[in-house]
Amino acid sequence: MNLLASPLMTDLYQLTMLDAYHAHGMDETAVFELFVRTLPPQRNFMMAAGLAQALEFLEQLRFAPEELEWIEASGKFSRGFAAHLGRLRFTGEVHALPEGTIFFANEPVLRVTAPLPEAQLVETRLINLVHFETLVATKAARSVLAAPGKLLVDFGLRRAHGAEAGLLAARAAYIAGYSGTATVAAGSRMGIPVFGTMAHSFVEAHDDESAAFRRFAEACPQNVVLLIDTYDTEAAAHKVVELAPDLTRRGIQVKGVRLDSGDLAALSRSVRRILDQGGLAGATLFASGNIDEYRIRDLVAAGVPIDGFGVGTSLVTSSDAPYLDAVYKLQEYAGKPRRKRSTGKATWPGRKQVYRRYDRAGRLENDVITVEGDTQPGEALLVPVMRNGRRLAAPEGLAAIRERAAGQLVKLPDSLRALESAASPYRVEIAPALRELAGQVDRAERGR
Amino acid sequence: MNLLASPLMTDLYQLTMLDAYHAHGMDETAVFELFVRTLPPQRNFMMAAGLAQALEFLEQLRFAPEELEWIEASGKFSRGFAAHLGRLRFTGEVHALPEGTIFFANEPVLRVTAPLPEAQLVETRLINLVHFETLVATKAARSVLAAPGKLLVDFGLRRAHGAEAGLLAARAAYIAGYSGTATVAAGSRMGIPVFGTMAHSFVEAHDDESAAFRRFAEACPQNVVLLIDTYDTEAAAHKVVELAPDLTRRGIQVKGVRLDSGDLAALSRSVRRILDQGGLAGATLFASGNIDEYRIRDLVAAGVPIDGFGVGTSLVTSSDAPYLDAVYKLQEYAGKPRRKRSTGKATWPGRKQVYRRYDRAGRLENDVITVEGDTQPGEALLVPVMRNGRRLAAPEGLAAIRERAAGQLVKLPDSLRALESAASPYRVEIAPALRELAGQVDRAERGR
Repeated sequence: MNLLASPLMTDLYQLTMLDAYHAHGMDETAVFELFVRTLPPQRNFMMAAGLAQALEFLEQLRFAPEELEWIEASGKFSRGFAAHLGRLRFTGEVHALPEGTIFFANEPVLRVTAPLPEAQLVETRLINLVHFETLVATKAARSVLAAPGKLLVDFGLRRAHGAEAGLLAARAAYIAGYSGTATVAAGSRMGIPVFGTMAHSFVEAHDDESAAFRRFAEACPQNVVLLIDTYDTEAAAHKVVELAPDLTRRGIQVKGVRLDSGDLAALSRSVRRILDQGGLAGATLFASGNIDEYRIRDLVAAGVPIDGFGVGTSLVTSSDAPYLDAVYKLQEYAGKPRRKRSTGKATWPGRKQVYRRYDRAGRLENDVITVEGDTQPGEALLVPVMRNGRRLAAPEGLAAIRERAAGQLVKLPDSLRALESAASPYRVEIAPALRELAGQVDRAERGR
Repeated sequence: MNLLASPLMTDLYQLTMLDAYHAHGMDETAVFELFVRTLPPQRNFMMAAGLAQALEFLEQLRFAPEELEWIEASGKFSRGFAAHLGRLRFTGEVHALPEGTIFFANEPVLRVTAPLPEAQLVETRLINLVHFETLVATKAARSVLAAPGKLLVDFGLRRAHGAEAGLLAARAAYIAGYSGTATVAAGSRMGIPVFGTMAHSFVEAHDDESAAFRRFAEACPQNVVLLIDTYDTEAAAHKVVELAPDLTRRGIQVKGVRLDSGDLAALSRSVRRILDQGGLAGATLFASGNIDEYRIRDLVAAGVPIDGFGVGTSLVTSSDAPYLDAVYKLQEYAGKPRRKRSTGKATWPGRKQVYRRYDRAGRLENDVITVEGDTQPGEALLVPVMRNGRRLAAPEGLAAIRERAAGQLVKLPDSLRALESAASPYRVEIAPALRELAGQVDRAERGR
């Protein structure tokens, strides 16, 4: 029983709803849309990610025999409900923003059109997957914008919220423009480039720092990046310089050094000087330790000689905004548009499409959200990706998604590239046709 | 290949280190300790959790054939390294704080004593598991303290960071004193009580709210908790009152209602009045929607008639402090104590023990961290849990862990029970023997 594919990765009320739908024969077509209600703090845009995992989940959806036994034995459902669930598959269609697409509040990221029980059951896990990857891709895109030309590597697994979070964060960061990750499973399972240097414990396990450097270089001659902050960073840089000639004679090149603590601006300058004066001008400087996009921006602005950054906890937890206000809402059932009107949580009804317009320089100008069928000028962002429960194409390769994401970042207007909230947020309009539909739904409700 | 048990859920540099250790025959006994360097913002204590998953990971540690193939084919390691890894098992011992134990900064949560390569390899996943469950147990304990006598249920799966985070958050919250979770897999896999009500989409899929309530009650007569905020909360409460007599005649009891939006203080009072006047004094009020421990505290202080809370995103992401400064550091190798001295990240060397002293009322008074063997007055907190790679006892039941956690919260001094940082933090002393050892290590380093 694979936890990650289990339909029991859901909220109890989804199963309760299915039981009630089943009892009352409610299985007409429902349309649900997944969207984010508001931009999180310090965010001027979001970047869509997680669609590949969401579609895989839908395509593989089925209850395992032991899961059905648990449902039967739980006593929480009607007799016969487990047997009914045993036959359940996802047979619907999905429209979505391609991964790597920039989007904004209230714009559907994904739309599910399926018999009501199928569309309802998958709510929890669809949000769970798309929410998290989108959260991290959005966070990662910020450091990509802050560090043009720098190597960025995800170092976050240890403080990611579980193993799946570590793996999906590596993927989301790679989509957004990171060069790779330290997480080995992301390499073995997803083909994401894997990076690594050496550990403090390796240095500490030796009685002598120079001996540790030498042994590491000998054991891993193809990737000699030495960690130099275990005791005294500048002293260690001198040790590297002393070691290098002998290593070079033996055909081993010191590729770089890593700083992981202290005043990175000051230390990177002094270490650069020590390396340059010691004949190691070709060795790169890599920095890690409490790095986030704000710190990267400040270091880059100060012109520090750092060639790359390992970004960990702040990236994989999106620490300054650890969640999005992501929801999955019923917008139509049995051919009728629907609308929730709860205070502060009202939704726009019906099946929607988003049109995007660009200025002459090809930068994003404004978006229009409207009802499907109300064609507007501009680019239609939601595209069909699944029909009859099957993907319309093989999963996109990560290279293609990365290219799309990079293209999207280029198209961002300057006002949205800043790390702080833009003075005037991006303009997303609600088309008259959608306002009209919302009014109709409200009048129909009041009429009852 | 199960992602959650895979030894490739690690950082590349761990494997690189193992390769180098192997090349140089470095396999003497290492001691690593997992601890949190500083308390996160707004936290006066932490609650240990995740040990069961950590021990299971260690006991099952082995590389699958396809993982070894990937390592071999990656070209990143020495020839023969994959074959060597194929034989690797965890053969060491573990000491730990029992789950549910309150602890503070710099106190070891877990200590691994094993041949260096084994102890190194497991760093990433051990932190990943213990960090996250401890983070959520700590967060959950705060709402438990804020809501004495109230029902608390984890509603967070959809915005948890992946499926494993959802499952482990449910476990951690249950340990800390929550009554259960909405996550079905936490029930089916871990025996945690599962709770649920009804969804907005169920109401919206009906043309009429009363009809939706009636159908839900008929389909799920054993758990009639009606969601009343889809359109107008007070109007819906009146509909519940109107429906109830007919349902009662048919043997169906309205157990309660759920509010999910709006001004919960005002609405809970007016809904309570409507229900009481309508003969539903026995029906409970359950609230959800952007709930956290601060909001619970304020609602409880205002004396609102809410019987229970569903807590979601804030709990499972620990949104006001989404990570701990958790690390796993080499403290001894080959019989010699070790110490990292990086700026701001220096550690106390050697194998340690924590002693806790209580005041006459049985409340925590102060802790002392010292070297193992330096027996101090008070309770020794770290206990042996694994030897020769095998658990010393069957995994503890959740009931026993919950009882311990509840007992720990009772022993908290009042100053640490507040949701904001205490004016004077809990006193954790470093014993003279440990200071002496650190000095010895530093002098030995300088002597070289």
